[in-house]
Amino acid sequence: MSNLVSEFNDYRARMNEVILSKNNLVMKRLWNLDTNTYEAGALDKRTKEMLGLVASMVLRCDDCIKYHLGKCHELGIKTDEIYEIFSVANIVGGTIVIPHTRRAAEYWEALNNEQKTGNNE
Amino acid sequence: MSNLVSEFNDYRARMNEVILSKNNLVMKRLWNLDTNTYEAGALDKRTKEMLGLVASMVLRCDDCIKYHLGKCHELGIKTDEIYEIFSVANIVGGTIVIPHTRRAAEYWEALNNEQKTGNNE
Amino acid sequence: MSNLVSEFNDYRARMNEVILSKNNLVMKRLWNLDTNTYEAGALDKRTKEMLGLVASMVLRCDDCIKYHLGKCHELGIKTDEIYEIFSVANIVGGTIVIPHTRRAAEYWEALNNEQKTGNNE
Amino acid sequence: MSNLVSEFNDYRARMNEVILSKNNLVMKRLWNLDTNTYEAGALDKRTKEMLGLVASMVLRCDDCIKYHLGKCHELGIKTDEIYEIFSVANIVGGTIVIPHTRRAAEYWEALNNEQKTGNNE
Amino acid sequence: MSNLVSEFNDYRARMNEVILSKNNLVMKRLWNLDTNTYEAGALDKRTKEMLGLVASMVLRCDDCIKYHLGKCHELGIKTDEIYEIFSVANIVGGTIVIPHTRRAAEYWEALNNEQKTGNNE
Amino acid sequence: MSNLVSEFNDYRARMNEVILSKNNLVMKRLWNLDTNTYEAGALDKRTKEMLGLVASMVLRCDDCIKYHLGKCHELGIKTDEIYEIFSVANIVGGTIVIPHTRRAAEYWEALNNEQKTGNNE
Repeated sequence: MSNLVSEFNDYRARMNEVILSKNNLVMKRLWNLDTNTYEAGALDKRTKEMLGLVASMVLRCDDCIKYHLGKCHELGIKTDEIYEIFSVANIVGGTIVIPHTRRAAEYWEALNNEQKTGNNE
Repeated sequence: MSNLVSEFNDYRARMNEVILSKNNLVMKRLWNLDTNTYEAGALDKRTKEMLGLVASMVLRCDDCIKYHLGKCHELGIKTDEIYEIFSVANIVGGTIVIPHTRRAAEYWEALNNEQKTGNNE
Repeated sequence: MSNLVSEFNDYRARMNEVILSKNNLVMKRLWNLDTNTYEAGALDKRTKEMLGLVASMVLRCDDCIKYHLGKCHELGIKTDEIYEIFSVANIVGGTIVIPHTRRAAEYWEALNNEQKTGNNE
Repeated sequence: MSNLVSEFNDYRARMNEVILSKNNLVMKRLWNLDTNTYEAGALDKRTKEMLGLVASMVLRCDDCIKYHLGKCHELGIKTDEIYEIFSVANIVGGTIVIPHTRRAAEYWEALNNEQKTGNNE
Repeated sequence: MSNLVSEFNDYRARMNEVILSKNNLVMKRLWNLDTNTYEAGALDKRTKEMLGLVASMVLRCDDCIKYHLGKCHELGIKTDEIYEIFSVANIVGGTIVIPHTRRAAEYWEALNNEQKTGNNE
Repeated sequence: MSNLVSEFNDYRARMNEVILSKNNLVMKRLWNLDTNTYEAGALDKRTKEMLGLVASMVLRCDDCIKYHLGKCHELGIKTDEIYEIFSVANIVGGTIVIPHTRRAAEYWEALNNEQKTGNNE
């Protein structure tokens, strides 16, 4: 299942390069600002990534969910914590969030399997 | 085209199993409640599945649409009724619903073809 | 509480007049089409208004909810039926729909009180 | 400004009573489940209320935002933490979230002023 | 009707001041970036404000709509152009946009009346 | 990459045919009205297609984005103009729009490559 992770990251990197090559200043600055938003401040990085994840889930953006799951995984957030984030997203956003939760669950398994097999990118 | 139906159902079943294996109580109870919501009450099952379908369409969740189309098919809702639900969804939700209507139309054909060939799951 | 009903209808009528006075053909035709959508066809008017209500609820548009509640009331849909529509909307759309359900409940009471006091518009 | 807080809570309580009086079982169970969702588990209450707040902001539900701001206030979450949650919501959800952030900022001031004047509900 | 305009602008200014006083760097930079986005570039200001207006309409944010209507008015965009933007928003976003179009139409009249009476802010 | 364009157009044509074959009058009239909406009027076609594109982006409908990108391409809208539309969509709609912008960027490249190789459909 670990192809899921590398495919997501490869496509993301390739298309980000296309977008940045056009030198649109607003896009560039928004992306810098996006990075700053998740830096430690009054709240730590873990909390901020969890906020990013739940926001992505209720807005039902699969790629945003994958991105924040990847970050949560790097930061050592555990499976039962992830599923409590899933539960908040499903209660606030309704059953319409369930199909996105399925894909999130699949991706989370892929992240964990990748780690076990030492197949980190 | 009937692969559409079995692929959807297989993936759904496999990932539901992953999610339920984590024993998150809120997720489990929400899913039970979801099942109860569509049971016959003051409104019959047919009407409730139609409500679930139109809600899924305006919220533009393809998998939710497929799920409710499957249920509507089991309950014997007819093609011209389905298309009137599509029309309410497209008027309320706008042309942004059209691409989801295309995929809904494709899935509805697949459900009907499957039935004709006796290829029920 | 019946002011809720007349205020909604008065503002709606006044602003519709402003919009139509500008003679934008697309707006006019969309409004005609909107009316046609809820006419009896393969599905009856009651079912279609229920579809319009649940769609308005999950999209969280208070004025659209009021409009369809008014129509449902005219068509004799009963309180326990209305609350089953509310329940589908809340399960599909999540707890984010609850504040809109509160305002819907208030408006439904207003419609019923108005009827009791003979204060129909 | 503290009227903001009591008006919100009073209307909410009054309408919840109306809704619960209709004995719709799905609504009742969803509300119980909603309460359970924010109980301490793998994640603590503070984190869960922050998740609820950011989800409400990106979904742009003013009343849901007020509810979670009230809970965050009770749990002692500080102003600079709240504004970092605001910033995540605005980056993820875009400038369309700004008007809701204005109303959130106003309500947060009201919660703090109320505390200073000992005017707790 | 011109109170609509001054009330909107006053509340907006007052709450922006509250938000900026908290010195959240991400919020400040996002607001600067927001201003830059609508500056003339490959597209002129008029076109960009029209884009901002239609985006606000389909996302159904009344305050964002008012803000961009104000800008469109300053830039001399005419009523029949505004109504063509309304028509695109209503077709793409569906009848769920109609109540927001009513409030937009009311605000546009207020902007025009204010100008006639020389009552500019 | 030009397969992206033909695959999109082929699927779209095939499914539109299925939908139209069911003779639902509301769907047919909505589609006619959709075509009329983008005809030149007080605003020219270029501006209207740009409005359609930005609306599709903030509503995050990939197929709608592809459709309007195709129309923008036919009308000779240039890459730096397209990226300014992308920037408005990303600022108004937030970082949740970024994954859709990646797919839009990919499709825009495909449209341009197709033109260079004379591989027009």
